[in-house]
Amino acid sequence: MKFFQVKSVEETFSLIKEQIQPITEYINIPLFEALHFVVAEDIYASENVPDFRRSTVDGYAVKAKDTFGSSESFPGFLTLAGEVQMGQLPPGVLQTAEVMYVPTGGMLPEGSDAVIMIEHCEDMDGLINVFRQVAPGENVISVGEDMQKGALLLRKGTKLRSQELGALASQGITEVTVIRKPIIGYLSSGDEIVPIETERLAPGEVRDMNGMTIGALVTGWGFAFQYGGIVKDNREEFEKAAREMLEKADCLIVSGGSSVGAKDYSVEVIQSLGDPGVFVHGVSIKPGKPTILSMAGRKPVIGLPGHPASAIIIFHLFGKAILEQLNGFRYQEKQLTFARVTKNIPSSPGRTDYVRVRLFEEDRIWYAEPIFGKSGLISTLVQSEGVIEIAARSEGVQKGDLVPIRIFQ
Amino acid sequence: MKFFQVKSVEETFSLIKEQIQPITEYINIPLFEALHFVVAEDIYASENVPDFRRSTVDGYAVKAKDTFGSSESFPGFLTLAGEVQMGQLPPGVLQTAEVMYVPTGGMLPEGSDAVIMIEHCEDMDGLINVFRQVAPGENVISVGEDMQKGALLLRKGTKLRSQELGALASQGITEVTVIRKPIIGYLSSGDEIVPIETERLAPGEVRDMNGMTIGALVTGWGFAFQYGGIVKDNREEFEKAAREMLEKADCLIVSGGSSVGAKDYSVEVIQSLGDPGVFVHGVSIKPGKPTILSMAGRKPVIGLPGHPASAIIIFHLFGKAILEQLNGFRYQEKQLTFARVTKNIPSSPGRTDYVRVRLFEEDRIWYAEPIFGKSGLISTLVQSEGVIEIAARSEGVQKGDLVPIRIFQ
Repeated sequence: MKFFQVKSVEETFSLIKEQIQPITEYINIPLFEALHFVVAEDIYASENVPDFRRSTVDGYAVKAKDTFGSSESFPGFLTLAGEVQMGQLPPGVLQTAEVMYVPTGGMLPEGSDAVIMIEHCEDMDGLINVFRQVAPGENVISVGEDMQKGALLLRKGTKLRSQELGALASQGITEVTVIRKPIIGYLSSGDEIVPIETERLAPGEVRDMNGMTIGALVTGWGFAFQYGGIVKDNREEFEKAAREMLEKADCLIVSGGSSVGAKDYSVEVIQSLGDPGVFVHGVSIKPGKPTILSMAGRKPVIGLPGHPASAIIIFHLFGKAILEQLNGFRYQEKQLTFARVTKNIPSSPGRTDYVRVRLFEEDRIWYAEPIFGKSGLISTLVQSEGVIEIAARSEGVQKGDLVPIRIFQ
Repeated sequence: MKFFQVKSVEETFSLIKEQIQPITEYINIPLFEALHFVVAEDIYASENVPDFRRSTVDGYAVKAKDTFGSSESFPGFLTLAGEVQMGQLPPGVLQTAEVMYVPTGGMLPEGSDAVIMIEHCEDMDGLINVFRQVAPGENVISVGEDMQKGALLLRKGTKLRSQELGALASQGITEVTVIRKPIIGYLSSGDEIVPIETERLAPGEVRDMNGMTIGALVTGWGFAFQYGGIVKDNREEFEKAAREMLEKADCLIVSGGSSVGAKDYSVEVIQSLGDPGVFVHGVSIKPGKPTILSMAGRKPVIGLPGHPASAIIIFHLFGKAILEQLNGFRYQEKQLTFARVTKNIPSSPGRTDYVRVRLFEEDRIWYAEPIFGKSGLISTLVQSEGVIEIAARSEGVQKGDLVPIRIFQ
C-alpha cells in the first residue's frame, strides 16, 4: 500500500475544518459540573447584574456636586447621615450636603451619585471633612453595568471557563445545556504489542505505550476515553474490533499499522468503516508521516503512527483539533509562545518538521533547546516541554531565532 | 484595620516560595489514574527500552558494510534470507551478503547492524537490488537507547504528563507513588452574599459568584475542592467556620472581607488560625490590592478580594503558585506568550497592573486588545483570554509593544 497523496500540514488542517461536524446531542448538567463543557445554545441574561448601584470602595456616598471644589487645602464639610449595611437597603434618602457611609459592594442610597473613598475624608464627630472632589458615577457600578437584562451572555460554542461559570452563577442559573462530551474509542494494533501489565516481555515484544499516552491526552483535554485493547495484525480481527468500538464511540483512534508495510491493514480497515472515508493518508511532516484521517459517517477515525513519540506529537497537532471541533468548540489554535533556539536546526523544504525542545530562562529571556533523537524514543519527549514547528517552505532555523512553540498540554 | 506593609508582586512570589511546604502524604495509585499527579520519589528504569534492537523503518536488515558503494547507478545485490515477524524472534542469523525483511518496530537479526529502507531497494525474485549505502546503526534503535536499565527515569516532583505515563508503561509499571492531591477548602464571607440557587434577590444582595469561579479554577487545575458555603460578617461565626474547614482541608481560601472596612474581620480571623500567621497583607497590584496570605502551621490560608474579577486574577497569579507548591510540584511560571498591544495603556509606577486582554490574529501576528472595566465586572473577564502585566517600575506600555501575556487556564 502506497501513500495516495501526501498532504501538507495546512491542507490537513483545512480538511479537518471542512470534514468534522460537531456532536448534536445536548445534555443539561448542574453548573458546578460544567467546567470545560461547550454551551449548546445562546444564553441571555435574565437579570441585571448588579441589580442595584454598588460602591466599588469603602467610602461615603455623596452627591458629586457637593464635593466640587474640595481639596487638601480647602476641604468640604458634609454631614454623616447614616451607614449602609451590606446586603441591606440604605437607611434613607441622601439629602444635599449629606454623606452616608457605604462599604465596598454596598448599595448606594437614593439621592447619591458617587462615592468618595474613606482615605480622602476625615470623620470629625459626624462632620465629614472631604479632601477631594469626585465626578458623578465615580466609584460606582451602575445597575446592569456588568450584565444587562436581555443581553447575550454566552454564545453557543463557548467553552465554559471559571469566568463564564461565574457569570451564569451571578444570574442564578444553576443548570446549563451543553454539548455531550465526545466518547473517544481507542485500539492499538500490532503483533508485537502486549498489555502494560505484562511482567516479562518475550523477545520482540513491547508494551502498549500508546494506549496509555493517548488515553492520558484524551482525558486530560476533558473527553471520555474508552480503551479497546490490542488487536493483532489480522485484517478480519482488526476490522471487527474497529466496527465494535466505533459503534460505542463518537470517534475512533487506531495506533500502529499505518506505515507502508506488508501487514498494514489500517488504511483498508479504516476505509471500510463507512463513507465518505479516508481524506488524509500521509502528511508531509516529520515525525508522523503515516497519519490517516477518515470520516465514517459523522464519526472521525484517526490512524496514528505506531512510534510512541510520533503518535503523541501528531495527536497534539491534529487529534486535539479534531476532538475540539467534534465537541462543538470554535477551536483556533493559538501559537503565542515564543523562545530563542539555542542551535541551528536544518530542515528539508517541502516538509513541516516538529523538533522537541526543552525551555529554560536566562536573564528574563526564554530559550528553546532542541532535544534530538529518533522519533520512536519516548525519553526525548519526557525531556521536552513542547515542539517548534519548522515550516515546509523553510530550510531550518538559525541559532538565536525567535520561534513559535507548541507546548505539550 | 490598615494594611500593614504592602508587598510588591516579586516580594509576594518569593515569600510564597519560602513559606509553602509540600504535602508529605503519599499514595499508590494505578497508572491510568495518575495523570497530573506529582511523583513522590525518584523512579529508576528496571528494564532496557527497547530490550532488543528495533528497526525504525520498513526495510531490510543488512550488514552495513555489504551496502558500501551501492548507488542508483551501481546497485548492490544481496540475497533475501527470510522475513522477521512482528513480536517474534528473527528466523536466523544474518550472513554476509544476505538481507532479511524487517517491518517498522521489528527485531533485527543477529549479524545485522543496519536497516535499509524498502524504498531504496528492489526485490527481484529474492535477489535484492540495493540502491544506497547505509551506515552501521542506521534506522536502528539499539538496546536501551530509549531508557537504560538502572537510569533515573523520573525525578521526584515531576508532574505526570502523557509522555511520563508512557515511559512508565513501557517499563511495565502499573502503579505509582504520588503526592496526595491537596484538598482546598473554601468560604465566602459577606452579609450581602447569598447562595447561587437564590431565585429572587433582595435589595443589596448578590449571589456567590466567587464560590463558583474559584471552585472551577481549583478543580480545573486538578485539585480537590470543598465548598464551605457563606459566612456572615460576624467574627465568631467566621472564625468557627474557618477553623472547621481548615481541619478538613490542606489549604483554606476565604473570599471577601479583606478590604479596609469596619467589618473586615478576615485578617484577624486568618491571623488567629495559627502560627506563623499572616505574611502578606496587601500587594501593590491592581486589581487585587487587599490580598492576604498566611500560614496556619503547614497549611496556607489565602484571603482573596471580594470583587469577582479581582479574585480570579489574584487566584491565577498567587493561588496557582501556592497550590502547585503545596502539591510538591517544582512550579515555575513561564510567561512565554507574547502579543502586540493595540492601544497605549498608562500605569502608575510603584504598582503592578494586570490589564485584561482579548487576543486576535492578523497576518500571523497576534494582538492583545485591552478590555477596560471596573475590577468588579465579571463580564470583562468573559471577554478576555488573559492579562498583560505592566511592571511596577513601568509607566505603561505603548501601542505596538510586544508584551508578555498570562493566559487564563
